[in-house]
Amino acid sequence: MQQAMQEAGLDALILRLPENVLLVSGHWPMIGAVYCVLPQSGRPTCLVPACFEAEAAASLQDCDLSLFGYGLLDSAPFATSISSLLSALPGASSWRRIGYEGNFEVAAPSWSTGEGMQPAAASFQLLKSVFPQAELVDATKLLMTERQTKTRYEIERMAIASEISCFGLQAFGEAVEVGISGVELVARVEQAIMVKGTGYKGSVRVRGFAQVTTGAEETAIAYRPNVISTTRRMQSGDFAMLELGVVADGYWADRTRVRVAGTPREEQIRIFDTVCRAQAAAVSAIRPGVPAKAVDEAARNVIREAGFGSGFIHITGHGLGFGYHESSPILGPASSDILQEGMMTSVEPGIYGPTLGGCRIEDDVIVGAQGAVVLGPFEKSLA
Amino acid sequence: MQQAMQEAGLDALILRLPENVLLVSGHWPMIGAVYCVLPQSGRPTCLVPACFEAEAAASLQDCDLSLFGYGLLDSAPFATSISSLLSALPGASSWRRIGYEGNFEVAAPSWSTGEGMQPAAASFQLLKSVFPQAELVDATKLLMTERQTKTRYEIERMAIASEISCFGLQAFGEAVEVGISGVELVARVEQAIMVKGTGYKGSVRVRGFAQVTTGAEETAIAYRPNVISTTRRMQSGDFAMLELGVVADGYWADRTRVRVAGTPREEQIRIFDTVCRAQAAAVSAIRPGVPAKAVDEAARNVIREAGFGSGFIHITGHGLGFGYHESSPILGPASSDILQEGMMTSVEPGIYGPTLGGCRIEDDVIVGAQGAVVLGPFEKSLA
Repeated sequence: MQQAMQEAGLDALILRLPENVLLVSGHWPMIGAVYCVLPQSGRPTCLVPACFEAEAAASLQDCDLSLFGYGLLDSAPFATSISSLLSALPGASSWRRIGYEGNFEVAAPSWSTGEGMQPAAASFQLLKSVFPQAELVDATKLLMTERQTKTRYEIERMAIASEISCFGLQAFGEAVEVGISGVELVARVEQAIMVKGTGYKGSVRVRGFAQVTTGAEETAIAYRPNVISTTRRMQSGDFAMLELGVVADGYWADRTRVRVAGTPREEQIRIFDTVCRAQAAAVSAIRPGVPAKAVDEAARNVIREAGFGSGFIHITGHGLGFGYHESSPILGPASSDILQEGMMTSVEPGIYGPTLGGCRIEDDVIVGAQGAVVLGPFEKSLA
Repeated sequence: MQQAMQEAGLDALILRLPENVLLVSGHWPMIGAVYCVLPQSGRPTCLVPACFEAEAAASLQDCDLSLFGYGLLDSAPFATSISSLLSALPGASSWRRIGYEGNFEVAAPSWSTGEGMQPAAASFQLLKSVFPQAELVDATKLLMTERQTKTRYEIERMAIASEISCFGLQAFGEAVEVGISGVELVARVEQAIMVKGTGYKGSVRVRGFAQVTTGAEETAIAYRPNVISTTRRMQSGDFAMLELGVVADGYWADRTRVRVAGTPREEQIRIFDTVCRAQAAAVSAIRPGVPAKAVDEAARNVIREAGFGSGFIHITGHGLGFGYHESSPILGPASSDILQEGMMTSVEPGIYGPTLGGCRIEDDVIVGAQGAVVLGPFEKSLA
């Protein structure tokens, strides 16, 4: 990243979004009140509320730590503390071009998912007042590019998140039955992730975000970027679809499984089988240098040949890792992305129809030198 | 709000943050991809992804609905759709001053809590290009002021969120026992909220965010803005503290309860009793026209007189309703806020000490004409 900064003529990056603090420092902020500063040479520094010292110290990697009082009666205002610590950083007065997060319109939450902190006008004004001599440069593109390919350490951490997601997939498979509701399934899945995931391979802060649709009417529109889980009770022969985001200490997994309550009908088996074959075809097509749209086409072709082409109305996959979704790569017909070693992508073909309902299967893979590596492999089974 | 816009010389407000879309339209966006436009006179319009039409139509109040394709293979780019719909709004070409959300550094999530969308540079550029003739004005202050006092309808909705939070408080009280862990308690609480809260008085999208600390070491630092729930198992005589945020269709509640596994010690009873009395004193002090710091002092005085003054290191309460926390009113010693009828605030005194552990009780109240009205009253009991 420091090389990219040099090429872009940036003396420092000053970051606040939890996902970018994680990228640079290995520490995933608790509430989004952390600043992370990466100079063009030398070690980064994280400015962390003193009450979170233990969490920061336990997770920072090759990064200095600077603490400030926060949130208590005797704490100075946040902006005052940050301004004073930023201006005291070694070399700060000589920085002429400083990169900041100007254009993150989609952002991952901090651990405090019920409330987000994000840089807006006040953060920008703070940088202008601390560094009056410097030009502030939007570094969004540089950051997104750096995030595209994951390091070995990051891949290990994302694999852990995927393994934890399997606790949720397992709970889902065990719980689907006639009479259970979508919200009850959500609660079972999220419980399994929190209870079994916390502590798994050292994971400290783990949370699942499940969305479960049941029956033809709900699953038929489960291609939506977000669906509502309801109190509708499953009937015999219903599809249940689980869309699942999992975060483990800032690293994400994104999974989908489908089950049937009772005995699947022949048509459901045929759709499910088609989706599984489409996913396998896409996974097989993944390797460095391949156009992302060719991977999409591999999946789409299987579904088309099975006669369900018009039901596959979304892309085959998207980047992720530092968030639930990332902007690159996109496995879709209009994508111009070329796969590179170390990229992470979801692979999630699906088929939807008003009477069929919907069926999607999703796993996350890393683009390895020899092809796709599926993170947290887990069985695919309808019943 | 339109009167405030007139006074501020704003021809229109263009909003994207889910909490402000909710404020103006009654619709809580699913993923944050909704725009809401309020002209200085006439009805507002929400621009909503077509796949969320049903949810929008069911919740919009006195607000027009305009749909656009989103997220599918055949959808136009988001910015293209929004630009075209914005420029087609009645009167749009005559707007000279347009308010936007320039400085929300803390924001509530959309229903999709695992991933936030927020206005950044691209949104600002979009407005500049659609309205080249207009001055763009940061309307953050106007919006925050409008949000301070809640309407009767909003109070009803926030009361529902508080009532739903009681399902979580109940589950917590029933589950605390020797041997259970913090993460297990979190899962029980969140499960109760999702399963019993969904459908409660018409609530559609309900989620709890629980944080549970147990034992002296964990609860002693549970004043932090965010704490980690762990796999530590409760021992006899341990405190368990539940910090709980609940959102029901965009309206928030914020509660805290403390329980002891087994038989409480005399000192625990004394602290608990002090905190309850401090909370009652604060609640009694609340009415329109009272300085917020006097409410804080009422609670602080009880704790001081009981000899625990140095353990009450945070403020007594904060505004909320359209988010987990809002910037006004602040019930604290340094606050200059004056309470007004219709304001909503938490009341949450607490006492913390390294060997004592921590004990806090929190409820939400509305400032009513005759005094505080507690939303979703729920028993306070240690055992």
